[in-house]
Amino acid sequence: MIVREAVEDDWPRIFPFFAAIVAAGETYSYPDGLTSDEARTLWMGQERVVVAIEGDDVLGSATMGPNRTGRGAHVATASFMVDPRHSGRGVGRVLGEHVIAWAANAGYRGMQFNAVVETNHGAVALWRSLGFRIIGTVPEAFDHARDGYVGLHVMYRPLV
Amino acid sequence: MIVREAVEDDWPRIFPFFAAIVAAGETYSYPDGLTSDEARTLWMGQERVVVAIEGDDVLGSATMGPNRTGRGAHVATASFMVDPRHSGRGVGRVLGEHVIAWAANAGYRGMQFNAVVETNHGAVALWRSLGFRIIGTVPEAFDHARDGYVGLHVMYRPLV
Repeated sequence: MIVREAVEDDWPRIFPFFAAIVAAGETYSYPDGLTSDEARTLWMGQERVVVAIEGDDVLGSATMGPNRTGRGAHVATASFMVDPRHSGRGVGRVLGEHVIAWAANAGYRGMQFNAVVETNHGAVALWRSLGFRIIGTVPEAFDHARDGYVGLHVMYRPLV
Repeated sequence: MIVREAVEDDWPRIFPFFAAIVAAGETYSYPDGLTSDEARTLWMGQERVVVAIEGDDVLGSATMGPNRTGRGAHVATASFMVDPRHSGRGVGRVLGEHVIAWAANAGYRGMQFNAVVETNHGAVALWRSLGFRIIGTVPEAFDHARDGYVGLHVMYRPLV
């Protein structure tokens, strides 16, 4: 598995798992039913986008950039999606380590995740193991497809 | 003082204090040096925008709408600016009460502020008095013009 910058030609191999993950309704608050073009604008339009690949397979993707503009632009944020067909292989960890290293190298002072679904235990555990802590949890802020209203964690990791 | 929906003609009376507040660098992370058109797109482009007026004077303005899309769209957010020339007259409180009532009536289940500067003691006290609590504080997430790196509070108030 390697991580490289995404190119436009990767999108047709990202969109199927992007759409499946959003439709599952357990981790992301993107609108339902986005077209491929709409989803591409949202995902590929971020400051930097990478893919984890193995051969011709795109195993997962991450976006990264500043969490805010202006006087908040020194804190980065990122989003991650791993193709469910390739879960359990450490793809999220590889992407997470890559993103943290990129942000530190780019001079960001910290990284913030604004909305980690509290019942997404695998993600919460992964981010904790990579140095993030839970700043707080907004109660009932996510309408989970199976669990109903659950909290969204704000998570943060300093980079300096 | 009354609160009403903003119209395009209000913008020339909002932009001077919008620009002054952003330039002061103490409360908002909008980019520096926005043109009037750029700032109008950001402020007036929100789902709903109101102004507090007295005679011909615009004393302050607030924007409001969903904090997220999709499965997070049941939580509202809002932003507030009060002309510094009219501070201390309760304009922020009047706007805050208006926005809370609007969001509750619109069916939102809660209201979240994503980035309240922790040294903005007046705002923090106002939101507390209107039923918000601090969910957590992202350390050093705001580069304050006078105080250097200070924290950003995430604040929340249930509406049901």
